[in-house]
Amino acid sequence: MTLAPLSPLLYEPLVRTALLEDLGRAGDITTDAIVPVEQRGSLALRARQNGVIAGLEVARCAFQMISPAVRMEVERPDGSAVAPGETIATIDGPARALLTGERTALNFLCRLSGVATATASLVAAVKDTRAQIVCTRKTTPGLRALEKYAVRAGGGNNHRFGLDDAVLIKDNHIALAGGIRAAIARAKAHVGHLVKIEVEVDNLAQLEEALALGIDAVLLDNMTVEDLKQAVAMAHGTVITEASGRITAATAPAIAATGIDLISAGWITHSAAALDIGLDHL
Amino acid sequence: MTLAPLSPLLYEPLVRTALLEDLGRAGDITTDAIVPVEQRGSLALRARQNGVIAGLEVARCAFQMISPAVRMEVERPDGSAVAPGETIATIDGPARALLTGERTALNFLCRLSGVATATASLVAAVKDTRAQIVCTRKTTPGLRALEKYAVRAGGGNNHRFGLDDAVLIKDNHIALAGGIRAAIARAKAHVGHLVKIEVEVDNLAQLEEALALGIDAVLLDNMTVEDLKQAVAMAHGTVITEASGRITAATAPAIAATGIDLISAGWITHSAAALDIGLDHL
Amino acid sequence: MTLAPLSPLLYEPLVRTALLEDLGRAGDITTDAIVPVEQRGSLALRARQNGVIAGLEVARCAFQMISPAVRMEVERPDGSAVAPGETIATIDGPARALLTGERTALNFLCRLSGVATATASLVAAVKDTRAQIVCTRKTTPGLRALEKYAVRAGGGNNHRFGLDDAVLIKDNHIALAGGIRAAIARAKAHVGHLVKIEVEVDNLAQLEEALALGIDAVLLDNMTVEDLKQAVAMAHGTVITEASGRITAATAPAIAATGIDLISAGWITHSAAALDIGLDHL
Amino acid sequence: MTLAPLSPLLYEPLVRTALLEDLGRAGDITTDAIVPVEQRGSLALRARQNGVIAGLEVARCAFQMISPAVRMEVERPDGSAVAPGETIATIDGPARALLTGERTALNFLCRLSGVATATASLVAAVKDTRAQIVCTRKTTPGLRALEKYAVRAGGGNNHRFGLDDAVLIKDNHIALAGGIRAAIARAKAHVGHLVKIEVEVDNLAQLEEALALGIDAVLLDNMTVEDLKQAVAMAHGTVITEASGRITAATAPAIAATGIDLISAGWITHSAAALDIGLDHL
Amino acid sequence: MTLAPLSPLLYEPLVRTALLEDLGRAGDITTDAIVPVEQRGSLALRARQNGVIAGLEVARCAFQMISPAVRMEVERPDGSAVAPGETIATIDGPARALLTGERTALNFLCRLSGVATATASLVAAVKDTRAQIVCTRKTTPGLRALEKYAVRAGGGNNHRFGLDDAVLIKDNHIALAGGIRAAIARAKAHVGHLVKIEVEVDNLAQLEEALALGIDAVLLDNMTVEDLKQAVAMAHGTVITEASGRITAATAPAIAATGIDLISAGWITHSAAALDIGLDHL
Amino acid sequence: MTLAPLSPLLYEPLVRTALLEDLGRAGDITTDAIVPVEQRGSLALRARQNGVIAGLEVARCAFQMISPAVRMEVERPDGSAVAPGETIATIDGPARALLTGERTALNFLCRLSGVATATASLVAAVKDTRAQIVCTRKTTPGLRALEKYAVRAGGGNNHRFGLDDAVLIKDNHIALAGGIRAAIARAKAHVGHLVKIEVEVDNLAQLEEALALGIDAVLLDNMTVEDLKQAVAMAHGTVITEASGRITAATAPAIAATGIDLISAGWITHSAAALDIGLDHL
Repeated sequence: MTLAPLSPLLYEPLVRTALLEDLGRAGDITTDAIVPVEQRGSLALRARQNGVIAGLEVARCAFQMISPAVRMEVERPDGSAVAPGETIATIDGPARALLTGERTALNFLCRLSGVATATASLVAAVKDTRAQIVCTRKTTPGLRALEKYAVRAGGGNNHRFGLDDAVLIKDNHIALAGGIRAAIARAKAHVGHLVKIEVEVDNLAQLEEALALGIDAVLLDNMTVEDLKQAVAMAHGTVITEASGRITAATAPAIAATGIDLISAGWITHSAAALDIGLDHL
Repeated sequence: MTLAPLSPLLYEPLVRTALLEDLGRAGDITTDAIVPVEQRGSLALRARQNGVIAGLEVARCAFQMISPAVRMEVERPDGSAVAPGETIATIDGPARALLTGERTALNFLCRLSGVATATASLVAAVKDTRAQIVCTRKTTPGLRALEKYAVRAGGGNNHRFGLDDAVLIKDNHIALAGGIRAAIARAKAHVGHLVKIEVEVDNLAQLEEALALGIDAVLLDNMTVEDLKQAVAMAHGTVITEASGRITAATAPAIAATGIDLISAGWITHSAAALDIGLDHL
Repeated sequence: MTLAPLSPLLYEPLVRTALLEDLGRAGDITTDAIVPVEQRGSLALRARQNGVIAGLEVARCAFQMISPAVRMEVERPDGSAVAPGETIATIDGPARALLTGERTALNFLCRLSGVATATASLVAAVKDTRAQIVCTRKTTPGLRALEKYAVRAGGGNNHRFGLDDAVLIKDNHIALAGGIRAAIARAKAHVGHLVKIEVEVDNLAQLEEALALGIDAVLLDNMTVEDLKQAVAMAHGTVITEASGRITAATAPAIAATGIDLISAGWITHSAAALDIGLDHL
Repeated sequence: MTLAPLSPLLYEPLVRTALLEDLGRAGDITTDAIVPVEQRGSLALRARQNGVIAGLEVARCAFQMISPAVRMEVERPDGSAVAPGETIATIDGPARALLTGERTALNFLCRLSGVATATASLVAAVKDTRAQIVCTRKTTPGLRALEKYAVRAGGGNNHRFGLDDAVLIKDNHIALAGGIRAAIARAKAHVGHLVKIEVEVDNLAQLEEALALGIDAVLLDNMTVEDLKQAVAMAHGTVITEASGRITAATAPAIAATGIDLISAGWITHSAAALDIGLDHL
Repeated sequence: MTLAPLSPLLYEPLVRTALLEDLGRAGDITTDAIVPVEQRGSLALRARQNGVIAGLEVARCAFQMISPAVRMEVERPDGSAVAPGETIATIDGPARALLTGERTALNFLCRLSGVATATASLVAAVKDTRAQIVCTRKTTPGLRALEKYAVRAGGGNNHRFGLDDAVLIKDNHIALAGGIRAAIARAKAHVGHLVKIEVEVDNLAQLEEALALGIDAVLLDNMTVEDLKQAVAMAHGTVITEASGRITAATAPAIAATGIDLISAGWITHSAAALDIGLDHL
Repeated sequence: MTLAPLSPLLYEPLVRTALLEDLGRAGDITTDAIVPVEQRGSLALRARQNGVIAGLEVARCAFQMISPAVRMEVERPDGSAVAPGETIATIDGPARALLTGERTALNFLCRLSGVATATASLVAAVKDTRAQIVCTRKTTPGLRALEKYAVRAGGGNNHRFGLDDAVLIKDNHIALAGGIRAAIARAKAHVGHLVKIEVEVDNLAQLEEALALGIDAVLLDNMTVEDLKQAVAMAHGTVITEASGRITAATAPAIAATGIDLISAGWITHSAAALDIGLDHL
């Protein structure tokens, strides 16, 4: 599976906003005062940590919004694993544009690569199992499309993109509907034929009830490995099974070994540390 | 020093964008199918970790953009330290609005509280010294004003907000100007009387040169504690001294003990883990 | 199944745009010149044709953006069938606001009611069959969320909302992939677990090939009723079957009688005539 | 009279909005999964009905916002009459961009061509008379500038563009002013020297009163052909005469034969069926 | 003629932009640091010069966007003449909101009142003549609707609002068309029935040619008073006559005495000095 | 000190808005009717008054948004002094684009050059003194970044850009804080290390109090030249001194002769007359 690039229409407004956060009302007063307008420069983006890259096209967009004369050569495209010291891309153009744009470009690149790297660490932890790593809606406000893309760059896959593209019936929905049966019936009566229905269950009794009602997927929240094993057996391939709840690289292998289809983790988007990437002026 | 609230004009557009990321083109199809329109509900926001709160007004804004009928009572306002189990706020209103808005509200609140908590951990590490903890421009694209606010909520203070509100002369500027002297001279000739000038230096020789040129602050990057001590002595109160470079709660006390004025850390905004805050339906 | 209201966040920007199309740079110069500012007025929205109503909340939003003092009482809410002469809603408030807002309010209401009415005419044509009427992506630019809502108001259901919420493999995709098998395999490798896959087929041979490959739905395009019957039999409930191609109230009953699950029609959004609704000043 | 192209500044924001309705948060997942990124393709836009074309530059804009590498050759420019099978334009570029952009491009082109075609049908019905066909403000929200342009492409002309570019005194204005005389007097006192004043009248007595008051145009609403004939005689060229009310290609010739200057019809914008235009992959 | 208020939809986005210019990324740091959050305050807007007021509702909007709790009592509404020391309005609310909003509110109010005052000075210079004072399209970018409104507040009237609401044929158009006759013929063939046509002429020969071609108005640019007198005689009421070119309060009376209908002046919008209005904290 | 160009990201949205104010809903109907689409043209921007130029890149942006085919050659760049008759720039491209864009381009250029010219008149009045001319926040709503830039083009410098980039404690702040001491103490406790603090004082007693409290600058408002002299002596170089209040080219020399550091004037932005620049079609 190759990684499809994201349409720039989905991130250009955010890049513009981010640049304006930095330019304020007067622009880069340090660079404008000090660097001659005709000066050119070159940069190298270099990894300072092991990780997986995501966001190079967004970084390119940031530089080119400052000046269309900036050129970027990518050596390690999005989805690549990198080691400390490896050159990810080289950039050249007007020195002012490079200095003015570098922080915004890095803010995108380091965060998205951080998400890709966190994802990849879980993907590695479950390799040789059938389990896929998926993200959640616990994304940074304004960056959902980009962080979901970064998860794909890290080898994971995406859960719902919003509240409108799939049904996910949670405990509160069940409580307010007066039971799983009513909740699922209402959902089925409401949604279109291309919308899947997933139900969150906390124990095997709930699972049994849900399985009898014809759904597409079950979210098994915070279950023990033992219970997950039994849940997978009960589902025996008729519905997609998903485990969630405090997933780490340490706990993921045992969970994946249960035969579960999906493991979802919120922290790969909401708490991933930025990947350390340096920008060296050449 | 009390924490001043941020003007809603500075975050309303981002809250709207974040809600639309979730609503997509059809809204919350699960809730709309299952929960009766007249149902009301109540929530409690509860800490699940020790931390410092930031972002409650942003969370309130998210709920009230979904429905102006939502009401929120704050028990632990922004800037408060909380312990696991403590109730931060209670919220009530139409059940649909609570369910539809809760993820966006939490995405803001958990991230901003994460930034406040990370800041507070460094602030605690340097207490009883003169050192202040400050943030950088390594913020999440689109969230600069909010993350800078969260740093203040955590007891820190803010460095530059953008490229336009202070001069910060870095190594690349010095190189392109042909030396510290030229760089500082150009900056002084360019900027207004209310703009301060800070210069980044890597060693004591550079510091000596910079001090002679009449600047407001020096950024001492990645220096040893020994060198920092000497730098503080050289500056003897005539310029503001700032230490940066891989600051942690473990390394901060020794750095603060040098008598430095400021310690800046990028990770408190770019790599802070989200604070775990639960939203219990009552 | 009750009709869930659409979040105003999804249409307020379009209502603002529409009002500004009318206000231009000087506002309603006729009304401002002629009608005293303190004058109040009342209106009744009345059907002049048989039809189904959709868009009342959008109309209310239009009036209240002109003046928050406008009040609207709904007598026949969205989804209601109306006959000529029936009062749909009454509105009162400052006379200037009523006159200035009425055209924009009606432009929304008549168009959306036209879509609902067209949908309802097909829904009526297939009643007492299992077939559901669904819309397509052939919607008016800028109005997709609203027109999809109007389809629901008319008793229909929604197909994909965009290119991102389900896979629909069409003839061109198949041609570029080098066959149905490759196309489906690539789609399965790419998309998340909550995304359904539908394949468009033109004949029964293609259908047979597709059915063997494990998909969620088939779009049977422009087939004869005979072929549709056979297709439904071949699918025997394992995949969702959808018929499309020049569907009218005259042709729909025979198609529905084949046992097909879904009948999709583009014209109910792209070519529905506006419903004639009058606005009488009382 | 040649058709002047519309400035792209007037439609680019709407094209962007329409594309984002389709791209959602993940883009065209079908195409991205299936079609190789380096694949190129060609399309032909072909008429499937008789009609008049409008919107080709908008369609071009849609494709080029997806990818600037798309090229379009126009064979039958806006304003051309086309017959089934005729090629309107050919398009080539990256296959992904063609597939991702085609629905949005067609949604604009088919709707605007539908408006042009409807207009042209009325224009044809009144040819060899002095009557011009004009549109109203009953346009699709957000598309006013485009639909008014499409009317011009169909050989019609435009009535008011908004509430601010001419005075149109309707029955409600007259009622609230306490009579035609007061209404016209207030309008004259209020508006600038470049603003024309038109008055709607329902009968010949009202017309007589209005003609005495020095106005630019009269709107003769829902009058019989007999009355229209007399109205034209009464006006004898001193004011512009306009007939409105349930105009069709069947009724227009007799109305035009009265010598009326203008015939206005709302349905050519609010209820025109989309023109059927196919997009064949070559 | 009473002054109609401008719809807030026409200025709210600009007020928001203006406030954000001031709030930047951190808001009013002086006020937030110094003024207690619970403090309330009162202000009086007082004239410091003779002039005419315009923009009070825009000022109110600025304060209320900062805080809906601000209240404003208007004593001298838009269009009023004021003398030094007169109180225009009183305002009260949270002291922080008053201090934070006052500069933006005044920036609007002083500029718009400056335009109104400049207009009124010309209006006064031509009183007891038939001449009306009108503005041009030489307005401040972004403020056209507001400045046109301020001209009305000052007793003037409006020329074209843009390039689309009337035809104004200038010397360059005539040159490119190959003469006045061709230019007017093309304009007549192109525009709708509610669009007036004005032609700019530089001398009486051109005027004679233009008058024979059936237009609505002539713009007599930079003519002597003698020529204007003759021009008015030649037009003898069949077309509207407008004089332009370096109009001042000193030159206007003689020009008005020629019997001209309109006198247009660019400087009342592009070079009016701000009216000095003080904001006293009570 | 050379003038650094402003990033187009800071003015493109305003240029777009300004063009749309002119294009309205139908564009330039005069030009579209009269000028052949293939016609090309050339313009020269020529000074008609002595002044200083600012805004040429904004003017270029306006033309190129209308048509990217327009080319502009600058002969007298921003910051240049010009005399009547001097050619500032030549422009060529499609004649329609030149005619449609010229008013917007000139509206920017004449206003910004007016601000630069007003600034330069004060700069000239204080030459051979240490005094710098600075602007205030009394700028045109929406144009702050551009007008601040124009002040720099005129040889002046900038005061605060907003409420967030420096502390300026005014009389009302002092009153609400209960004295200068409390106000300064609160400000110091609140703001970051790169933020300067300026205090407005009305007399020498206040100045003495303020000087003792460790601030960066004092604003001496409406003081006599005698008092200013003494104030400069009291400050003896430890704080920056700024004089304000009804500054003109006549009063500035005496004020500058006091040895004051800065002279601030609001009228150079809020009441500068537009510079008269002609646009001749070649």
